[in-house]
Amino acid sequence: MNIQGFLFSTVEAGIKKAGRKDLGLIFSEVPAAAVAVFTTSTVKAAPVLVSREHIESGIAQALIVNSGNANACTGEPGMIVARETSRLVANGLGIDTTAVQVCSTGVIGVQMPMGKIRNAIPELVEGLNSGTLDDIAQAIMTTDTFPKMEARSGQAGKASYTVAGIAKGAGMIMPNMATMLSFIMTDAAVEPTFLQQTFRNAVDCSFNAITVDGDMSTNDTCLIMANGMSGNPTITAGSPEGNTFAIILNEVLLSLAKQIVKDGEGATKFVEIRIKGAKNDSDAKRAAMAIANSSLVKTAFFGQDANWGRIFAAVGYSGAEVDQSLLSLHFDDVCMARNGIFAGEDAEARGTEVLKQKEFAVSIDLGIGSGTATVYTSDLTHEYISINADYRS
Amino acid sequence: MNIQGFLFSTVEAGIKKAGRKDLGLIFSEVPAAAVAVFTTSTVKAAPVLVSREHIESGIAQALIVNSGNANACTGEPGMIVARETSRLVANGLGIDTTAVQVCSTGVIGVQMPMGKIRNAIPELVEGLNSGTLDDIAQAIMTTDTFPKMEARSGQAGKASYTVAGIAKGAGMIMPNMATMLSFIMTDAAVEPTFLQQTFRNAVDCSFNAITVDGDMSTNDTCLIMANGMSGNPTITAGSPEGNTFAIILNEVLLSLAKQIVKDGEGATKFVEIRIKGAKNDSDAKRAAMAIANSSLVKTAFFGQDANWGRIFAAVGYSGAEVDQSLLSLHFDDVCMARNGIFAGEDAEARGTEVLKQKEFAVSIDLGIGSGTATVYTSDLTHEYISINADYRS
Repeated sequence: MNIQGFLFSTVEAGIKKAGRKDLGLIFSEVPAAAVAVFTTSTVKAAPVLVSREHIESGIAQALIVNSGNANACTGEPGMIVARETSRLVANGLGIDTTAVQVCSTGVIGVQMPMGKIRNAIPELVEGLNSGTLDDIAQAIMTTDTFPKMEARSGQAGKASYTVAGIAKGAGMIMPNMATMLSFIMTDAAVEPTFLQQTFRNAVDCSFNAITVDGDMSTNDTCLIMANGMSGNPTITAGSPEGNTFAIILNEVLLSLAKQIVKDGEGATKFVEIRIKGAKNDSDAKRAAMAIANSSLVKTAFFGQDANWGRIFAAVGYSGAEVDQSLLSLHFDDVCMARNGIFAGEDAEARGTEVLKQKEFAVSIDLGIGSGTATVYTSDLTHEYISINADYRS
Repeated sequence: MNIQGFLFSTVEAGIKKAGRKDLGLIFSEVPAAAVAVFTTSTVKAAPVLVSREHIESGIAQALIVNSGNANACTGEPGMIVARETSRLVANGLGIDTTAVQVCSTGVIGVQMPMGKIRNAIPELVEGLNSGTLDDIAQAIMTTDTFPKMEARSGQAGKASYTVAGIAKGAGMIMPNMATMLSFIMTDAAVEPTFLQQTFRNAVDCSFNAITVDGDMSTNDTCLIMANGMSGNPTITAGSPEGNTFAIILNEVLLSLAKQIVKDGEGATKFVEIRIKGAKNDSDAKRAAMAIANSSLVKTAFFGQDANWGRIFAAVGYSGAEVDQSLLSLHFDDVCMARNGIFAGEDAEARGTEVLKQKEFAVSIDLGIGSGTATVYTSDLTHEYISINADYRS
């Protein structure tokens, strides 16, 4: 995979306890059109507040990211750290401070060791010629068990371009913003307003359609940088090239979002929840999210127990308009219930077989209207408890 | 404890697998003023639909309840069972069918074995002189580990009266209606409109202020019957006797609600979440419930990890109005954070000691207004997963 004009570097700054890389830098050789979507939480981490200011220019050229400390609930000292970090990166690279995005992930409420970051930045800048995107994907992991990457290429005019992305997730996965961090880079030239629209749409259908534990983070950030270095004619809305770009972008984000669910803390199952027949799309999303976030449903998935009644119970309290006599439910292609009642003993055995798979779909038809939604979730397991009961220790 | 004019009976009808009592009958020798609050889920169990019709008369004289089968998502066959059950009880007791309340708890989506209930009702009616309220509390248990009972007595005029209640909970505990089933009986004479008001208020401050796993059941029912057999002058609103009755009723319901949380599936901690300084009371409740339902917060409680940042994160996504620079947090009397940031290393050690207790309070001041709320919750444990992964097997 080659994304022209992007350079990468990682170092071990000592923010994490273990001997792992914990600080990364992404640099575009030229200023890139940039769009970011941040957590909607009212408790926002300092780097989110600073990055949100910086992105208003619509331009980004560098991104510095650390793991091991979220720099959230750190008050004014945290803001000073985030600002100084971006200024030091800007100075090191010879670019504007507002062209630097700052991201953090890790423990909340602990002051960031600014000295360690200050010491590490020269080495980080120095290393830009030797690093890879994979290094960054590794450096941003916290309780993630594998790095998350995806790349696709497209054609615009005579130029071929690449859209590549990385993400980290694991815990605190819930819309709106599901991912904690995801960075997308493309060497395509894309008209800025079109870039914004397609990116926001893609985020809605991917990171905002996944849930692991229903918790939203203080640090969620999803960012795209388009630097135009592939030399293609600028991609615009309404063109065939625009449609292709939108499809490619969706594929990259959806792949990253699914990887996050598959690596959900302690997850052993990947479940696609499909709702149709809802009064409207937002009712469908409500029903899907209620199922995807239900502890009772998720433990039943873990137990491979075809306890479909819990799914109907979740639909019932979701707030979506429901006529229980019209509900139907499938596990993959096995009909578990129709007209609101059990489809029969045969379904029980066959449904249980479906749940024994690592991946399956749960499809509900509300039978009322034409609203649809799809969300992705995992099961709730012993391992989730173990990971989160002593995350900091 | 003596609640005049109430009789109780339980039998083993064979609805549950094990050799446990699973069917109970409560009978008032005279018709009682009655109020019920049911699940707000749109997927309501058949007994809820039938009981809701019956309670419109404002009168109840008998209540039949089974465990082992929820008679939910059972369609028209389920409705026929619930109706026939109430008719058979009415015939056996020589009362109106509408004076019979029907309640069920257990697995969702399985047709009720009507034959077993039909066979058991004569023995159930027969046994009314020998049973106790404690027997009923035992018979309605599902994954509960202990029966939940509370009683208080009061004075009105020259008569003393009793308010006694039982409840079952364990899983699917979430407002609005938190409890799966709770039945309150009093031999006081209470003016019906006042009974309704005080009962609904008491439910709001108790069962609607607890949460174990955020799931709401299809069968939640909370019912009060006041039969006036103590011979007191009718208790009315605005009187000293009315105030006393309201206090007693609150105490009984709050005690039952707390017992449900303490017996939350796999719970090892009982946590009181207190919010003050919110913009208004509903904002306070939103913040409290976001904390109480956060899987990340609840696993940290289990791990006795003073990870206060997760609590602020939950407040942040709760939807309540928040200025993070004004937030403060206490574990019991230990200040963990003020002005949105950590109170210091000393707090860490002392806060951890608080979390080692079986019961503690988490208090948050949002620092904005005068809204308050208190909710009760438990931790999220390995045992919860074990119980719910194979509840049916």
